[in-house]
Amino acid sequence: MKKLAVVAFGGNALLKSGQKGTFEEQIRNVGDTCKALLPLLQQGYNLVIGHGNGPQVGNVMLQHEAGKQVFHLEAMPLDFCVAETQGSIGYLIELCLFNEMRKAGLNRQVVTLLTQVLVSKDDPAFANPTKPVGPYYPKEEADRYSQATGAVFKEDPKGNGWRKVVPSPTPIDINHLEMIEAAVEAGHIVVTVGGGGIPVIREDGGFKGIEAVIDKDLASALTAVRIKADEFYILTDVPKVYINFRKPGEKALDTVTVAEARRYLAEGQFAEGSMAPKIRAAIFFVENGGKECIITEAGELGKAAAGTRIVA
Amino acid sequence: MKKLAVVAFGGNALLKSGQKGTFEEQIRNVGDTCKALLPLLQQGYNLVIGHGNGPQVGNVMLQHEAGKQVFHLEAMPLDFCVAETQGSIGYLIELCLFNEMRKAGLNRQVVTLLTQVLVSKDDPAFANPTKPVGPYYPKEEADRYSQATGAVFKEDPKGNGWRKVVPSPTPIDINHLEMIEAAVEAGHIVVTVGGGGIPVIREDGGFKGIEAVIDKDLASALTAVRIKADEFYILTDVPKVYINFRKPGEKALDTVTVAEARRYLAEGQFAEGSMAPKIRAAIFFVENGGKECIITEAGELGKAAAGTRIVA
Repeated sequence: MKKLAVVAFGGNALLKSGQKGTFEEQIRNVGDTCKALLPLLQQGYNLVIGHGNGPQVGNVMLQHEAGKQVFHLEAMPLDFCVAETQGSIGYLIELCLFNEMRKAGLNRQVVTLLTQVLVSKDDPAFANPTKPVGPYYPKEEADRYSQATGAVFKEDPKGNGWRKVVPSPTPIDINHLEMIEAAVEAGHIVVTVGGGGIPVIREDGGFKGIEAVIDKDLASALTAVRIKADEFYILTDVPKVYINFRKPGEKALDTVTVAEARRYLAEGQFAEGSMAPKIRAAIFFVENGGKECIITEAGELGKAAAGTRIVA
Repeated sequence: MKKLAVVAFGGNALLKSGQKGTFEEQIRNVGDTCKALLPLLQQGYNLVIGHGNGPQVGNVMLQHEAGKQVFHLEAMPLDFCVAETQGSIGYLIELCLFNEMRKAGLNRQVVTLLTQVLVSKDDPAFANPTKPVGPYYPKEEADRYSQATGAVFKEDPKGNGWRKVVPSPTPIDINHLEMIEAAVEAGHIVVTVGGGGIPVIREDGGFKGIEAVIDKDLASALTAVRIKADEFYILTDVPKVYINFRKPGEKALDTVTVAEARRYLAEGQFAEGSMAPKIRAAIFFVENGGKECIITEAGELGKAAAGTRIVA
């Protein structure tokens, strides 16, 4: 039996700040990230890829807003925008990974599954939306949108204006797990749970989309647990996890137990919105039957001593 | 063995002209179309859904253009935009069909596969792009874009300005056919080949996206042939195919042989951009081993004498 790895990486590995964001740049970034996955494939792993969509869904929301202003098109809710990015990012990953594999003589397929992720409408996050998304508005316009749609707006602390804030609820279930497993068993690489998944809640015996952002590391961790992945990789832009990061006494961590990781989290060693959610996702994976989670940068994948290993 | 049907419907069944295009309207339209599929499911069919994206991809291109004007975001090429619509339309179909099935007591899953479709860079269509897409531009701007990107622009005959025209090449191959078949065998309904598929050409042993529009009926027909569908349904907004349509001597057709269909096509009985491509897709299906193609409107699905049957 081949070993099964889930790899999660951020949307900012594909659409990078500091670049213009041209199609060619994106293809190059995606190609680089995909090339970094090859060592795992060459070692015979089966692979499931979860990815973020922060910069991409931000752009889509701006494009919807601009389309409204310029062409009087209706702007769509966040769940619709997330679905758009699952299409576009999935396409780029599928195309580039296929091409990189062919160059490396690897003869496998890449399939992208549209993925809804279930959250609970009773999740406490819904009482306290915190995640800013989409364009900045002047106060009057934000008030108008808020009254029309029920959306919550908060003032940007840097003074850029008012911005919609949405909840970040906990993922409960991933759809199409059996399809993911069937594709993996057939030897395919599966791209899924893009942007943390399209958030849906239960309603009337079915599902309903909801405006929320699901943490992509946590959604990938849940996927990894449910499909019983042997290893769970969270890619970031540093080779290891550090304590006292960029401070006196900075120390790279090689192996961390769940208990130690919890202690570091409580000490505030890991930045919110950056390393902290990755550590929580790692803990979730290991506490729910996963053997180890490796947090590292793309270039380290497949190396024996790569990254920081979070273990039981 | 359950019978396998491929159903193709247009993007304009979901985003209708004459409506504002709100999310709620789209959900209602998609729900109505999905409800119309239930009789086939209740008769025990396995089902693969192909869909168009004309109005949707047009909106995405306008949003990219507006995003460039208002927020200085880079506009992406058509293949990227098609991928976005595979995400958004797939999401709406998956959500609404799931909900309609649950209301009807049908306990099946819907999965959406991102789908690239192979075309040949030597397709004669590339020498003569004809399909207008995206925003209208003043001549000077169209010239500038044309010089910068190599895109071809043509003047709108109604005087709205200049518009990018892209080729409409013939689909050669559909990716992930084995995944479609595996999902169907598992009893799932599969949404695929959205918008006719993301157009790609072969390059350097891999694939490369290309700006083109693949006819969704033809791409669905090719899918139907390859997965050996028993029946191929093309949905339109009239219950049957007519000769002398909306003219003296108008006659609804019940059953048409391929030879008759070819003769009517040669006579110019079917409008280009409307019924003619549907007839060609029907002929393609039947000539390549399909038993019958039924062209009808959504509300007729599952009725014994529904639509016009194209047979060998």
